[in-house]
Amino acid sequence: MRQAIVWDNGAVKLIDQTQLPERCVKIRCTSVDEMWEAIRSLRVRGAPALGIAAAYGTCLGAQSIQATSPDEFCHAVERVTAKLATARPTARNLFWGLERMKRVLEAREDRDVAMMKGALLEEAHRIRDEDEALCRAIAEAGEPLVEQQDQILTHCNAGWLATARYGTALGVIYRAHERGKDVHVYIGETRPLLQGARLTTWELRDHGIPVTLICDNMVGAVMKSGKVSKVIVGADRIAANGDTANKIGTYAIAVLAKHHGIPFYVAAPSSTCDFSLPSGERIPIEERDPKEVTEGLGVRIAPRGVQVYNPAFDVTPHELITAFVTEHGVLYPPFDRSLKRCQA
Amino acid sequence: MRQAIVWDNGAVKLIDQTQLPERCVKIRCTSVDEMWEAIRSLRVRGAPALGIAAAYGTCLGAQSIQATSPDEFCHAVERVTAKLATARPTARNLFWGLERMKRVLEAREDRDVAMMKGALLEEAHRIRDEDEALCRAIAEAGEPLVEQQDQILTHCNAGWLATARYGTALGVIYRAHERGKDVHVYIGETRPLLQGARLTTWELRDHGIPVTLICDNMVGAVMKSGKVSKVIVGADRIAANGDTANKIGTYAIAVLAKHHGIPFYVAAPSSTCDFSLPSGERIPIEERDPKEVTEGLGVRIAPRGVQVYNPAFDVTPHELITAFVTEHGVLYPPFDRSLKRCQA
Repeated sequence: MRQAIVWDNGAVKLIDQTQLPERCVKIRCTSVDEMWEAIRSLRVRGAPALGIAAAYGTCLGAQSIQATSPDEFCHAVERVTAKLATARPTARNLFWGLERMKRVLEAREDRDVAMMKGALLEEAHRIRDEDEALCRAIAEAGEPLVEQQDQILTHCNAGWLATARYGTALGVIYRAHERGKDVHVYIGETRPLLQGARLTTWELRDHGIPVTLICDNMVGAVMKSGKVSKVIVGADRIAANGDTANKIGTYAIAVLAKHHGIPFYVAAPSSTCDFSLPSGERIPIEERDPKEVTEGLGVRIAPRGVQVYNPAFDVTPHELITAFVTEHGVLYPPFDRSLKRCQA
Repeated sequence: MRQAIVWDNGAVKLIDQTQLPERCVKIRCTSVDEMWEAIRSLRVRGAPALGIAAAYGTCLGAQSIQATSPDEFCHAVERVTAKLATARPTARNLFWGLERMKRVLEAREDRDVAMMKGALLEEAHRIRDEDEALCRAIAEAGEPLVEQQDQILTHCNAGWLATARYGTALGVIYRAHERGKDVHVYIGETRPLLQGARLTTWELRDHGIPVTLICDNMVGAVMKSGKVSKVIVGADRIAANGDTANKIGTYAIAVLAKHHGIPFYVAAPSSTCDFSLPSGERIPIEERDPKEVTEGLGVRIAPRGVQVYNPAFDVTPHELITAFVTEHGVLYPPFDRSLKRCQA
């Protein structure tokens, strides 16, 4: 299983996911600005991977800080984390990663700049390593939910490209496949940026898991024809009551799953939970450039100047979610209680 | 209001809808094969327009038949209609148009080839003229359903491009707009061929009606946020019980409308009804080339050889439909009874 983001000798090496599946190009980010741009442009994406990107991005900033005074250094790092926090608004893990990095400095007593730089990098590595372990634990916890011959619909990409390794929703599927379960995956292309068509098909084929690509508007028809036995998706932010922000289109899939009596699972590490929000209403939803819709593929598909609404996420109310698959196991309703296991 | 398909001096003149919105190019079809290709490739599309295309396509075939014997002529015309019937399988109106043309020959007693050719062209003109009148009647019938400040979601394109003139679902909106009602339209791009993004936005802007383009997977989020007060779509085939085949994605929209308590209207002429089918189960659903999904815009968006499911239509069960807007007025459930008004 490959890795989408690694620390490489003072730089962050990424698979540039905007170029997949035609080209698998690795890029090196050596500054906070480059990291910010990579996050903003979705060269690196996926909530768990954004936590890692935030952490390594902080290290890129820290290593270039010239200050020798610990206070100056800490202030400069704060500017770095503040900058990275503006890259994208919805995924909880980005902010969670930055908070973990900030706590490293708060906790240190030695106040030695070189030591602090080292401690930041150690913490970033720890976040990365933990994420890999979390993905394994999520996959292990979710695997028993998958039955022989399951036809699983997922959305967007919640695989190894979106995490340290292995994946969340796809991790569950990979584990089931490793255990000899024959599964078939349906994936909507995930307009406008086509993560389903570009990334999830690519990952699954690479692992020998049969996949059928559909357009997002075919989900209803595919469910109606009995082709889907289960839905498993990732998450970008989970409120205390279980309301879940995830890639735009997830909410419609959840409504359709409910209408057809199909279980709907959300697989995510506890770092995706935001216990400061009692419900999903106040999860900030990123709106992106209309051009992603009207000329996202380099081809204009709508009249010039047409008004476009382009939210990158939507919120699925907890009532539509069968269970969360987390590193703490499979959590069932009532979620306001069961999700407490994710509260550190 | 412009016309998408007209008879022009022995040829059928079409707006090539595959080139919109960037170029509004008119093409001339002078043979059955060209007409067949234009239908197959969606240069002309929309159920009512396909009825007209079928009729004029029959005239193209008829005028090139050299036979002087009436029997030979009729057999040759049958080969023409049989060919045109293979262009696309789902829209009822295509077959309805061909049947009307065939009945012209069956009904004639003079058996004079030149007269029969003339009669076929007359019938084709009549089908076109009737469709325009039907669209006016549908618009008139549906207009009272539209309220001041309505936010109407439609799907694909059911406007003047899809009919003789005016449109069905969009006809209702145009009429409401003419009557001074301020409406706002939401349109999903309608993957894979993007009729919503390319055609409906173009039509509506041309008529000064505000429109917001979204991706198909945003319908749920837009409804949840209270932005949609009504859904009006067209239809490709309506079974006797009201089950309705329409552009892929319509079914999901209907489920979402039901979930949000939003009225869901289908606007169509009675020629869309297929009373030979008791329910929607046996409506033949066209599956189109996977390349429409994977490289529809000339840009490859998925790994080579990926399996694709690309149905062009889905069937919305009658329980999800609030009412049909037809030339016979607005028809409410039970549809097995109310739709009888559409039975000639």
